[in-house]
Amino acid sequence: MDTTIFMELLSKREFKAIRSILDVMNAVDIALLLSELEDKELALAFRLIPKDKAADVFSNMNNSMQTYLVNIFTEKELKELLDDLYMDDTVDMLEELPANLVTRILDTVDSTKRNSINQLLNYPDDSAGSIMTTEYVNLKKSMTVKDAMLHIKAVGIHKETIYTCYVLEHRHLIGIVSAKDLMTIDDDTIIEDIMETEIISVSTHTDKEEVAKLFSKYGLLAVPVVDTGDLMVGIVTVDDAMDVMVDEATEDITIMAAVNPSEKSYFETSVFSHAKNRFLWLLILMLSATITGSIIAKYENAFAAIPLLVSFIPMLMDTGGNCGSQSSTLIIRGLALEEIKFSDIFRVMFKEFRIALLVSAGLAVANGIRIFLMYHDTKLSIVIGLSLIATVVIAKLIGCILPLFAKKLRLDPAIMAAPLITTLVDTCSIIIYFSIATKIFSL
Amino acid sequence: MDTTIFMELLSKREFKAIRSILDVMNAVDIALLLSELEDKELALAFRLIPKDKAADVFSNMNNSMQTYLVNIFTEKELKELLDDLYMDDTVDMLEELPANLVTRILDTVDSTKRNSINQLLNYPDDSAGSIMTTEYVNLKKSMTVKDAMLHIKAVGIHKETIYTCYVLEHRHLIGIVSAKDLMTIDDDTIIEDIMETEIISVSTHTDKEEVAKLFSKYGLLAVPVVDTGDLMVGIVTVDDAMDVMVDEATEDITIMAAVNPSEKSYFETSVFSHAKNRFLWLLILMLSATITGSIIAKYENAFAAIPLLVSFIPMLMDTGGNCGSQSSTLIIRGLALEEIKFSDIFRVMFKEFRIALLVSAGLAVANGIRIFLMYHDTKLSIVIGLSLIATVVIAKLIGCILPLFAKKLRLDPAIMAAPLITTLVDTCSIIIYFSIATKIFSL
Repeated sequence: MDTTIFMELLSKREFKAIRSILDVMNAVDIALLLSELEDKELALAFRLIPKDKAADVFSNMNNSMQTYLVNIFTEKELKELLDDLYMDDTVDMLEELPANLVTRILDTVDSTKRNSINQLLNYPDDSAGSIMTTEYVNLKKSMTVKDAMLHIKAVGIHKETIYTCYVLEHRHLIGIVSAKDLMTIDDDTIIEDIMETEIISVSTHTDKEEVAKLFSKYGLLAVPVVDTGDLMVGIVTVDDAMDVMVDEATEDITIMAAVNPSEKSYFETSVFSHAKNRFLWLLILMLSATITGSIIAKYENAFAAIPLLVSFIPMLMDTGGNCGSQSSTLIIRGLALEEIKFSDIFRVMFKEFRIALLVSAGLAVANGIRIFLMYHDTKLSIVIGLSLIATVVIAKLIGCILPLFAKKLRLDPAIMAAPLITTLVDTCSIIIYFSIATKIFSL
Repeated sequence: MDTTIFMELLSKREFKAIRSILDVMNAVDIALLLSELEDKELALAFRLIPKDKAADVFSNMNNSMQTYLVNIFTEKELKELLDDLYMDDTVDMLEELPANLVTRILDTVDSTKRNSINQLLNYPDDSAGSIMTTEYVNLKKSMTVKDAMLHIKAVGIHKETIYTCYVLEHRHLIGIVSAKDLMTIDDDTIIEDIMETEIISVSTHTDKEEVAKLFSKYGLLAVPVVDTGDLMVGIVTVDDAMDVMVDEATEDITIMAAVNPSEKSYFETSVFSHAKNRFLWLLILMLSATITGSIIAKYENAFAAIPLLVSFIPMLMDTGGNCGSQSSTLIIRGLALEEIKFSDIFRVMFKEFRIALLVSAGLAVANGIRIFLMYHDTKLSIVIGLSLIATVVIAKLIGCILPLFAKKLRLDPAIMAAPLITTLVDTCSIIIYFSIATKIFSL
């Protein structure tokens, strides 16, 4: 849908045309379209959305749009919206709303829903509890497939996913039946005979990243959540798991660039917040880099005698940093995907050592030839070649070891990425370089 | 399941115990467990897996396990397996098998299936066609909900997902009905009246990354794939979309560390391949860094006069590199998530400029104080402070502009990450530093 056309229709108050456009559009696309509008027009347009789509559009809106709408809604409109919103979307919204609007919403819903909401709001930010919904289909083991289908027909429409049904006994989860089974197995079959009893479930406090990993490992559509007393309290659905996966990848990538992760997008984050998220790491890394500087200062006599030595510093520092980052990045990603474990440390080191020898030999030869052609100085070629080989080997070993140790110490391995590795490797490469140079040139 | 116990049971040939263990285990976990076994034991264990689970376990195995099994299977075993494997899993396997085994498999399946397989194998590697399955439930618009449910009961069990059903007319996709609708709407309703006609679909040649994005944007369980003649040819399911998302994040992260991405995991990739994937970028970056070196060489007189100047090189280079990487990383990620577009370039630049001023002011003050306390040299403090500010501003601008231009030029923005940005910024920071130093110290 073209935004300009839509705005024009809206300003001309062509409600009938707008309604028929909104009628065929997807809820996600409507939310995107509405995000281009001014507040007042937004309220007008929102009220033209077909009733059965309004809650879905609302849950796809950004925080400031939701806040505005909740603020201006009548009591009746708010109640209708809250009746249609899934529990997890309601809680997502409440987590971002100003306190007075949260109170308004809690006053509007009935006491059962209020209790559920309050409970969901209490789960830690990164837990399964915080992303789950309390709406799911539950069955009894004594039902037949036909009973189950009738039960779903009666209650299913309000539930977020009905494709996995949960068999409960005294609120304990004893089995799982997929809608696929219900739809393809004989009507008279008893649920107990077809339910799966090997259940993959998570606790309310399981980290949401772990939950998302279960989805991609086992190809799930939903996973049941049980509380500390092992009673079933909700489900996490695959669409929320996908959001978590995207967010976690963004967080890892951000941390790997020495930036504190932000929950907001680039443009939603203010200049001041951006600066704050980036400053501390820059300061720490800058001060660490002065160590390398003071080591260079110690070799003042060496480069006073041969000034050309200084000009190889950037090449050695950069190559060391790049080699170290390559290794650390691959290890950090391998750890995140659980392809590498701490116990693999010697296997990883041996592998990186051999890779480093191959790579550095190539680089040393390339550079040796270049230097010999430019300066006709064999000694210098040897100094640079040896420094390169030693730097690359040490860089790759530091790059692979640190993320593994971070994992072991329960730190986020992503902090051991390019910026920190580069700073550490720089110091090593300078020490190696000047030690070799002073020896070979007898300075 | 404990691997050692399982291996012991296997070596003791306790088939009954093994069967009952395999009976309750999840297919993904069985595949993992079997990956720890020797080839011979693997064949034995695989034959003990319950028939209805064997194909699912097989599709979760790695390539070398699949190759081994296909090689030793009898004609009958192979046929049984191929009958139960989903089409997309069959094609995934064929793409990795040696040619003689591919021929063996194509000879085993019937001609209809062989045609489908050949067609799927022909789609480009990164396309929707290469990850789709040709098995889906199709309905007619004149059916009632009851007819549809009976149809699903008859054919559904062989289809990969039955949760989204497709209404076809002369092989053209005219509507979508969810299993949720079928399960909750009145039995006598006509499909045409409930089918959704605003359809989100992709073409066989759509990039699989784009396909995965649709799933997370719209929260889909499956997406239909149409060919160039607009005829429906298959569906992509959410589990495959999740795999694509994980793979694409890995690819981005790998490229951002100046490593050519590999389809295999860290340990599956040989030392030689690892070296090959890393060498070319290292060589290019190393040679680029020599430019910075030759610029330094030009200022030989400057650091001959004040040798202390050399010791600030690492700090300036690292800070510039880190600042540039922070910006480029956030922009690369924003582009991948479609939160930032090329047309935002001036907004981004203005934002980064203000962030750079804030950050660099902080860093300059911290460093100025440190230098003044250590060397009691106001001029040096000013030189370093000004160089820092100019370096950070330029680094952040280069860091945000290059990924945007890469996107515009249809290159992968991820190549404009830390390694390349660092090398470019290094050159700038050295030029800035020595220009300021020679001016202020009148060298």
